[in-house]
Amino acid sequence: MMSVPHPFEGMTCSLNMADAYDALIARLKELSVMGEIGATLAYDQEVFMPSSATQARGDAMGWLAKEMHARSTDTSLGELISSCESDDVFGGLDVDQKANIIEARRSWERSTRLPADLVEATAKHQALAQMVWAEARAASDFSRFSGTLSTMLDLKKQAASLLSDGGDHYDALLDLYETGLTQSALDPMFAELEATLVPLLAGIQAAPAPTLFRFEDHGPYPIAVQEAFGREISEALGFDFKRGRMDVSTHPFSSGLSTNDIRFTTRYDSLEPLSAFYGTLHETGHSLYEQGLDQSHIRTPRGESVSLGVHESQSRFWENTIGRSRPFWEWLWPRMVKHFPQLDGVADAEQAFRAANCVGPTFIRVEADEVTYNLHILLRYRIEQRLIAGDLSVDELPKAWDDMMENMLGIRPTNAAEGCLQDIHWSFGAFGYFPTYTLGNLYAAHLFTTIRQDVSELDDKVAAGEFAPILTWLRNKIHSKGSVTTPEGIIEAASGRPPTAKAFLDSLSAKMSKLHGLTS
Amino acid sequence: MMSVPHPFEGMTCSLNMADAYDALIARLKELSVMGEIGATLAYDQEVFMPSSATQARGDAMGWLAKEMHARSTDTSLGELISSCESDDVFGGLDVDQKANIIEARRSWERSTRLPADLVEATAKHQALAQMVWAEARAASDFSRFSGTLSTMLDLKKQAASLLSDGGDHYDALLDLYETGLTQSALDPMFAELEATLVPLLAGIQAAPAPTLFRFEDHGPYPIAVQEAFGREISEALGFDFKRGRMDVSTHPFSSGLSTNDIRFTTRYDSLEPLSAFYGTLHETGHSLYEQGLDQSHIRTPRGESVSLGVHESQSRFWENTIGRSRPFWEWLWPRMVKHFPQLDGVADAEQAFRAANCVGPTFIRVEADEVTYNLHILLRYRIEQRLIAGDLSVDELPKAWDDMMENMLGIRPTNAAEGCLQDIHWSFGAFGYFPTYTLGNLYAAHLFTTIRQDVSELDDKVAAGEFAPILTWLRNKIHSKGSVTTPEGIIEAASGRPPTAKAFLDSLSAKMSKLHGLTS
Repeated sequence: MMSVPHPFEGMTCSLNMADAYDALIARLKELSVMGEIGATLAYDQEVFMPSSATQARGDAMGWLAKEMHARSTDTSLGELISSCESDDVFGGLDVDQKANIIEARRSWERSTRLPADLVEATAKHQALAQMVWAEARAASDFSRFSGTLSTMLDLKKQAASLLSDGGDHYDALLDLYETGLTQSALDPMFAELEATLVPLLAGIQAAPAPTLFRFEDHGPYPIAVQEAFGREISEALGFDFKRGRMDVSTHPFSSGLSTNDIRFTTRYDSLEPLSAFYGTLHETGHSLYEQGLDQSHIRTPRGESVSLGVHESQSRFWENTIGRSRPFWEWLWPRMVKHFPQLDGVADAEQAFRAANCVGPTFIRVEADEVTYNLHILLRYRIEQRLIAGDLSVDELPKAWDDMMENMLGIRPTNAAEGCLQDIHWSFGAFGYFPTYTLGNLYAAHLFTTIRQDVSELDDKVAAGEFAPILTWLRNKIHSKGSVTTPEGIIEAASGRPPTAKAFLDSLSAKMSKLHGLTS
Repeated sequence: MMSVPHPFEGMTCSLNMADAYDALIARLKELSVMGEIGATLAYDQEVFMPSSATQARGDAMGWLAKEMHARSTDTSLGELISSCESDDVFGGLDVDQKANIIEARRSWERSTRLPADLVEATAKHQALAQMVWAEARAASDFSRFSGTLSTMLDLKKQAASLLSDGGDHYDALLDLYETGLTQSALDPMFAELEATLVPLLAGIQAAPAPTLFRFEDHGPYPIAVQEAFGREISEALGFDFKRGRMDVSTHPFSSGLSTNDIRFTTRYDSLEPLSAFYGTLHETGHSLYEQGLDQSHIRTPRGESVSLGVHESQSRFWENTIGRSRPFWEWLWPRMVKHFPQLDGVADAEQAFRAANCVGPTFIRVEADEVTYNLHILLRYRIEQRLIAGDLSVDELPKAWDDMMENMLGIRPTNAAEGCLQDIHWSFGAFGYFPTYTLGNLYAAHLFTTIRQDVSELDDKVAAGEFAPILTWLRNKIHSKGSVTTPEGIIEAASGRPPTAKAFLDSLSAKMSKLHGLTS
């Protein structure tokens, strides 16, 4: 493999137009292979690498990023894309090939609209800002982070302006994470969520507090056993361990290193088993999506997952839609007891199901229940809108956060660590990312309505651990579709109607009303 | 890090000669960073990656190899090296800088003397040949491998001819693995080994067979406990787990992913603990060398390990010179009993020491004892000489192997798997590699003679687990020297005299004579 010539050595300007598509695909595949290398370096860094090697690994990642940037912005790549967009080429392409051209154009615009010095300044500031953020959060001292965050906000405002092409700046950032997503879609959606979830929470809080089974009272839960349990359930849902692996890291995540190498991580707490278990379900959902992508489109944009929102729909589907349902717990409970014999006789499937659906306002998003979770996202969304629009300054951020939290959830953070310093996202400039979490929740419930129609006796199947029909549905309707069209287009085609918040709100309200004896 | 310009963009022909050195070093550092990426991909592949991802990883490694080859053979790199070799530059350099130029020239010659099509053909054939070899070995059927091996031999003969620059072809291959190594040095050395080791083995076999303690009779040895034991001992010898890690793989190896990320692997057999333990000592030795390289020369040739032979001297030093000594077992035994309580009272340090020094002719090199090991290498060395010279055909190889084995060790393989198919090396064309194993054994013993002089009460220190003075000596005299001069030059400077086989033969004969009551 030492001396394979570059696939485009000798390519001339007289390139036959009919060859333009193949030439473009070869370029994109090279970038995809480079992306696999980057994913491997990143996974190793998070999971295996001693922290003493951080600087050296940074050099390696930086070298790769530089090489990828050079290829992503190479003039001849832009020319190839333009050639493929010409009528005589584009008209002759099939739907998958067209998707590749459309996505290549989108990536090209994103890569080339930002000048190199802005990209470099942002990358450098990211490394610094994540460090400063971590220290500020540990000290729960927003003042240590505010200057750094202001600089990041300025950099992202510049990027948003350049990316927006005259349109709204925050919409340009939303589009980075979920193609086509705009505030004009999100504003009414979040308003609808707020209008239902805030009263639902109030109703739950006003109802007599149920006496819940507490897993914490029956520990410890040995970590090796938790891991075996998680592995068994992940495999039962359909994760193929021959094409991937499960590891441990500080922050659970999933990653596709290459088409047959999908990995995810979990973290364990020996005092209670549910957080690791639901983390495993969540990451299994992401990984099932990656394992279900269509291998015939390997290393092309068409073969990639379509968006963060659709990705999150797959994780939240298995974590919440299935994983926090009563039939699932009927199946799960005896398996859990087999792994943790101390649970035998101290509770039953119904009690465990209720414990897994405990609701109440909390400060930390990643610990939030299904009722309050999207309110946490709504808060961040409204703050981001104001920050990018310049209606809110960084200095005003903590108070705005705390006020909104108190207003929506009735609790007020006592320090910045449980307030606006809790998430890492802004430290790397990911403004516009949070709404994809809510999209994922809504898409999951929306898809489930259709799955219920298409898969007969679904609750019985779940209670019997027969997940294959569900996974097959997702494989056919979502996973294998990759990026053949827009995120919303894929959800609409799968479900037969445009996605809305209705299914999520209806099913959550029904479950919670039943659990808490509410009349809605 | 996204858009750092290539360090040599805009470099012109009017480059100031005084800047040539810095420009060259920047090029070499880029290649080193790329090497770190390759090492990370390779380590992940061996240790963590699901085998289903082999093809995708091959693409990634191939892409990286292609990029490295392009940079390694770039004409402007050759011009930079030439500039640095000019009197007005080279004369102004210090000894470390000169070493970098010398090594850069050597790498340049190696990279550019072989035409791209030969390199590519060899790389492709390597991938095939390793697969064919594995199948042939599993079936113990040499005929399935002979054609593939013939092709590999032809490719390596072509390479040897091109690399030899008119000199001896096998010498050119030896030089690839150990700079400056020739048959004129190896022939008398191996003759001396043969003249002493064959009678030594005969004497041991003629003496009354000792009744040895058998670890196998007191198992099992849980793998988690073996791992904890190995980790404790590795750390006691000086391996810094904050700058590295220990894993499991089918074939134990060590690898430097970057200066503060040195990793090694072991494999475990729950029925007996010594093979994993000595594997751990061996790889710890390699890793201590890597951890001891001078960080001020990071990513330059001067900062790298100097050769395979010197590397092997470090692994065999801890495995055999120290690890199979009586004082070491005095220290080790109570620690071993602590981890494996079943050993308490069934043996003592002396019996364990004797068990670890069991001698006898065996077919498999990697299982051989200290007396027979170098005879296994001698056999391979003489066969390689004849294969490369054309005095032995591939078809004649099995019989030649078996005859020589019977002649030297008195045992004749009953099948090819325990004969000439046992090692992977020839399947990837590594003719000339085996002798570095013997060099390592000799260097280890040779250095130990000087360490004994320089470190007072050495046996007492080893018996007390005080390894720091020994490691410090190796750090100062070997590790930190990197590639400042030739392999032999480094051994000679460290020991004050040229390396010979004497120390190895004297110390081994003395130990074995004592153990077996021989009079020599």
